[in-house]
Order: sequence, then C-alpha cells, then structure tokens
Amino acid sequence: MKLYDSKMAPNPRRVRIFMAEKGISCDTVQVDIMSGENLSDEFLSINPRGVLPTLVLDDGTVLDETVAISRYFEETQPEPALMGRNAVSKATIEGRQRHMEFDGLLGAADVFRNSFPGFSSRGLAGNMGEIAAIPDLVARGKQVVELYYQNLNDYLSSHEYVAGDEFSIADITALCVVDFATGASRIPVPDECEHVKRWHTQVSGRASAAA
Amino acid sequence: MKLYDSKMAPNPRRVRIFMAEKGISCDTVQVDIMSGENLSDEFLSINPRGVLPTLVLDDGTVLDETVAISRYFEETQPEPALMGRNAVSKATIEGRQRHMEFDGLLGAADVFRNSFPGFSSRGLAGNMGEIAAIPDLVARGKQVVELYYQNLNDYLSSHEYVAGDEFSIADITALCVVDFATGASRIPVPDECEHVKRWHTQVSGRASAAA
Repeated sequence: MKLYDSKMAPNPRRVRIFMAEKGISCDTVQVDIMSGENLSDEFLSINPRGVLPTLVLDDGTVLDETVAISRYFEETQPEPALMGRNAVSKATIEGRQRHMEFDGLLGAADVFRNSFPGFSSRGLAGNMGEIAAIPDLVARGKQVVELYYQNLNDYLSSHEYVAGDEFSIADITALCVVDFATGASRIPVPDECEHVKRWHTQVSGRASAAA
Repeated sequence: MKLYDSKMAPNPRRVRIFMAEKGISCDTVQVDIMSGENLSDEFLSINPRGVLPTLVLDDGTVLDETVAISRYFEETQPEPALMGRNAVSKATIEGRQRHMEFDGLLGAADVFRNSFPGFSSRGLAGNMGEIAAIPDLVARGKQVVELYYQNLNDYLSSHEYVAGDEFSIADITALCVVDFATGASRIPVPDECEHVKRWHTQVSGRASAAA
C-alpha cells in the first residue's frame, strides 16, 4: 500500500489525520502540487485526474479521492469509528462532513486558486487543462467562508464536535478547512466566533493534527 | 418520515431514484426552488440551510443532504446495494460518485446559476445571502462539463456502469448530472461520446429514472 501525499494541500492532510486517528501508516511519496508535479506524465500514469491524495493498494487498485480513501480505512479498520456507528449517526456525520466541503472548503479553495499568481491558469485542481483564474471568485469565496465560520460557530455553540458529541471525519475536514482558509486563503476566524476557537484549540491538540 | 422534494432540481431527483431502486416510498412535500420557497421562513425553520432534498425522520432527525439521505436508506435497507458490498467496492463507488459531483455537477450548476436571469443574486444554492452571479463562470462551467463528458466516455468504453460492472449510486448521480447539464445548462453530449449515449439510454430505461 502506498500513499501519494502532498504536505502543502488540505486534502492529503485530511487522509493523514484520518490514518493517524486509526494508527495506520504506510509508505508515502511526496508530490509537489505547487510546481505542478501532480500534472507530470509520471504522476498522471498513476492517477490520470492528477489530484492528491491517491492511495494504491497492494493489488494495484487505485483510490484517487479523499473520502473514498477514508472509507476504505473505515471498512478495513473500523475502530475507532470516524464515520458513525448506526444508520442515523452514519448519515448525520456524512451530511456534516459534506457541509464542511461544500460550504467551506470550496469557498476557501476559490479564494486561493483564483488569487495565487502561480495558479493563474490552474483555476481548478487537477488535470483539467488550462482554467483561467476568475478574480471575482476571490470576493465570493471570502463571503462564503465568512458565512461558513458563522454557521460553524452556531453549531458548535451547542455541540462539542462538528457532527455531534463524538470526534469524527467531519472534524477532520473542518480542521483542514479552517487551517487552509486562515492560512493559504488568509481569511481569519472572527473574534466573536468563540465556539470555533474553543473547538479549534481542542482538535488541534490531538496528536493526529500534526500528521 | 417525510421527504421535502423539488421536481425541477437534480439533487432531489438523485434521492427519488435511489429510493425507487430500493422500493422505498414516503410522504413528500414539493418546495418550489425557482420561486424561492426554499428560502421562506417556513422551510428554513425545517432546514436552515435552505436546500433540497431534506428528509425528516419520525423521531424528528433532519437529514439535509443528498448523499447523507442515501446513506441512511442504504443502512436501513441494504438491498439492492447501491453503495458497494466490501471495502474496495464501497471506496471505489464513493470515489466515482464524488467524481460525478465535483467534476460534473458543480460545472453544470455554475453554468445554470450564473446565466439564469432569475438567479442573478442567487449564484450559489441555499440560504447563502445575496451571491451575485459571475458571468465568467458560465464559460468555465461549460469547459468543465465538456471535459467531464470526455472522461466519462473514456471510462464507459471499458465499463458497463459508472463505477464498474454494477449499477450504483454513481450511475444515479451521473444520470442526474447529464440530464441537468443537457437540459437546464444546455450543453449537449457530443456525438462522438458514443459510450455515454449507450449508457444513458440504458440507465434512462430503468423504471427508477422516471421517479
């Protein structure tokens, strides 16, 4: 089993944290997205979509998608459960995890990819051909992330974690979204989002957060 | 159990087809997205995110997300399996399902939402506040969908279905993406995408496609 990883990007980090929570490790290969190594012939021969993370199983099966890789580990090593334990908790966690992606990560990615000079023709991730940056997406993305912070804060005012009372994959996604949005996308969490700050300190203190 | 549904939109259709494949039915309430009924106080009191579909369980649990609702039905009524039967097939189907969303549906939605006059201040779905349409997203979305058709065609040249040899949730998503992209977004499937056309005829012929 081999994990193609990229230290700079939020999606590979989601898988590294997921694996760390379960105590799973494997060989990893670093692929430098910033210089376009993910679009090299060598990497495209492994994953034609050109995205990270990518997990290659010992039988050659290629899993080229963050949540799909997480699902594989959840199925092969169920404990500790990170994707729920019964129908309602599985569905709730899946829904919350997806809110973190669609309501937060997409907006933060829009800000970064459409403002970073090195990505002026790489407006979308992976092997998409030339996609021109759209400057208007920077303001829209910022608006989306600011609403995301407010909504996350509201939720965390009455829940310990992002999908209820247990740490889950939804916390992993949210941690990577907040760190990416405040870092690469430069959108700080407002001071009044005190519940986001409480939660962020708490999950950042887990050993897995350093993965 | 009650499903808040909207006949015009692709995401509620995904859940209706999923339920039809499993032979599940329940009370439904139509919510008119075009007129903004999903942003009314009445609907926001049920689902503050203002998106469809939304499933309310008998115990009051609200599942407000397409794949989360599908997961709930997969767990409570496993047959016929639409999300895989073992670790590798579950991960593969999840990955392929997500490709259909991120590589296809987002682009088709960009085209529609940023060109339809009635959505000039509703550039993103749901309760997001005013989001101005960005005209440049129409051309980008078209470029994304055209690449999606080519990649789907390549995959279907050597597989019967969208995630291998069995019908799955990935086919349901792809069917709704293709019908939405060719319909509301007006991007036809090119004639040379003969494998997409073969597959589309096949899955459109299933009784569930009319749900």
